Amino acid sequence: MASPQAQAMKDLYRGWLAAMAANPDLGLEGTRDLFEHWGDLTTDPGGVDYTEVTAAGVQCMWAVPHGCAEDRVALCTHGGGYVAGSMYSHRKMFGHIAKAIGCKALLVHFRRAPEHPHPAPVEDTVAVYAWLLQQGYKPEHICTTGDSAGGALSTTVLLAARDKGLPLPVAAMPMSPWYDMESLGESLKTNADKDCLANETMVKTMAATFLGQASPVDPLANPLKADLKGLPPIYIQVGGDEALLDDSLRFETLAKAAGVDVRCEVFADMQHVFQFMAGRAPEADDAIARMAAWVKPKLGL
Amino acid sequence: MASPQAQAMKDLYRGWLAAMAANPDLGLEGTRDLFEHWGDLTTDPGGVDYTEVTAAGVQCMWAVPHGCAEDRVALCTHGGGYVAGSMYSHRKMFGHIAKAIGCKALLVHFRRAPEHPHPAPVEDTVAVYAWLLQQGYKPEHICTTGDSAGGALSTTVLLAARDKGLPLPVAAMPMSPWYDMESLGESLKTNADKDCLANETMVKTMAATFLGQASPVDPLANPLKADLKGLPPIYIQVGGDEALLDDSLRFETLAKAAGVDVRCEVFADMQHVFQFMAGRAPEADDAIARMAAWVKPKLGL
Repeated sequence: MASPQAQAMKDLYRGWLAAMAANPDLGLEGTRDLFEHWGDLTTDPGGVDYTEVTAAGVQCMWAVPHGCAEDRVALCTHGGGYVAGSMYSHRKMFGHIAKAIGCKALLVHFRRAPEHPHPAPVEDTVAVYAWLLQQGYKPEHICTTGDSAGGALSTTVLLAARDKGLPLPVAAMPMSPWYDMESLGESLKTNADKDCLANETMVKTMAATFLGQASPVDPLANPLKADLKGLPPIYIQVGGDEALLDDSLRFETLAKAAGVDVRCEVFADMQHVFQFMAGRAPEADDAIARMAAWVKPKLGL
Repeated sequence: MASPQAQAMKDLYRGWLAAMAANPDLGLEGTRDLFEHWGDLTTDPGGVDYTEVTAAGVQCMWAVPHGCAEDRVALCTHGGGYVAGSMYSHRKMFGHIAKAIGCKALLVHFRRAPEHPHPAPVEDTVAVYAWLLQQGYKPEHICTTGDSAGGALSTTVLLAARDKGLPLPVAAMPMSPWYDMESLGESLKTNADKDCLANETMVKTMAATFLGQASPVDPLANPLKADLKGLPPIYIQVGGDEALLDDSLRFETLAKAAGVDVRCEVFADMQHVFQFMAGRAPEADDAIARMAAWVKPKLGL
């Protein structure tokens, strides 16, 4: 059963849907402002410095926990359907993750749809990854992580890096990744009554906005359609009540079949990106501790 | 008339009071967590770096807007009745202020009551001010600002600095300062129906907690009882609907009588520390622009 504190996630999402219903003319700016409140759920991790930087022409933010291993980096991509969310809305959540791992985090403020549809977000992310390598960070000291659309980016950046002939990061940790641009997951229906945010209509609209003229089976937009052979170890976290649950489960099956060291952990009764409740709900703190325990040995920490 | 956006401040405060009423056992930790949500109202200013530092043994945070004058500093003290609030809850609001001025901000994470009653908060703040001088910042390049209890600290730090024989900062900008530890203001009654947060019972309880064994007429706790002669120029902003409105108006009268260049601007229909709505409500952005316009020439900017 979910902790009493975890109700905050449901309240936030229901408030968003209510605001959208009450303001049919909310528009892009209004929607983005709603999503900027995602991080309101997260406590400040404390002891983390935040510095904005331009990397390969892309706006980014370093989150540097005091006393961390400064040569180890988590490359972080935020959620929000490729349309909303930012390095600001996700600052504290990725700060918690970096602090738990004991590494720096680099948050990618990638270009968003509809102004910049696919492949702009993944191009920006792989450009930032290449920049990290140019700066002297070693691929075996870099992992990727992200949530929702950013969870997909934490995966597609591996494919894009491979396409460019770059050495791959040592590991990836997608949270509630949104992979399926065809919206074929069974959980869109079976979890429809449990998920307080995502629903089939919203997901299909966001997919169309993100794709623009691109195909929904482009592997860099939809890693369920990608050749996954040779990817580094991947640890997925997803909530049991998510409409997008099947995205994670299908990816796990496909990656296993391709010989990838993959593991998907389903957190019962949890909503989309429940890790946002870091510092406030025990489920989020537990999940982040599990991410850290899984990735630290891979980063040599 | 208040903008539609300004409703957010009322909603937040009413939510706090409702949470307090629904949870009579909320306790210190629960109350502090509520107040950590203050900054949820504020957009991220963007282009501001945040770095934690220990200054004279006191936890602090630098907020450094890109391209600012790095030798000019706003010393910032957060509100929360000396009991709650932090350099984290106020990070974005002070970030907006620093960005508008074009200077760095140093946010003081002073010790709080009840663990550390008066004079711990003002002692920490003046210690940080002395540290700034030791670091080579010139007093004529430093202003103070703060909100609510922090608005009082932005004033009492001047008195404490004078007591220590330190040269004074060039200006002070209290926002909705909470000065009166005797709770004698008429507006506690006349604005009782308009203020969505502060009320006489709450204010008296917080004053007792803050004071501990100290006297409510100690000038360093209650600057309405201080000798104000020789203080630098002071610009106060306060909301017209505040229960604490009289704190500002009485201070203005007393400071004028003492020959201080003081000005109090009352913002009609506004709530306590409405500047928290920076980036979201026009009244907040207008107020912060006025602060910047007032203080920039004093800082030589």
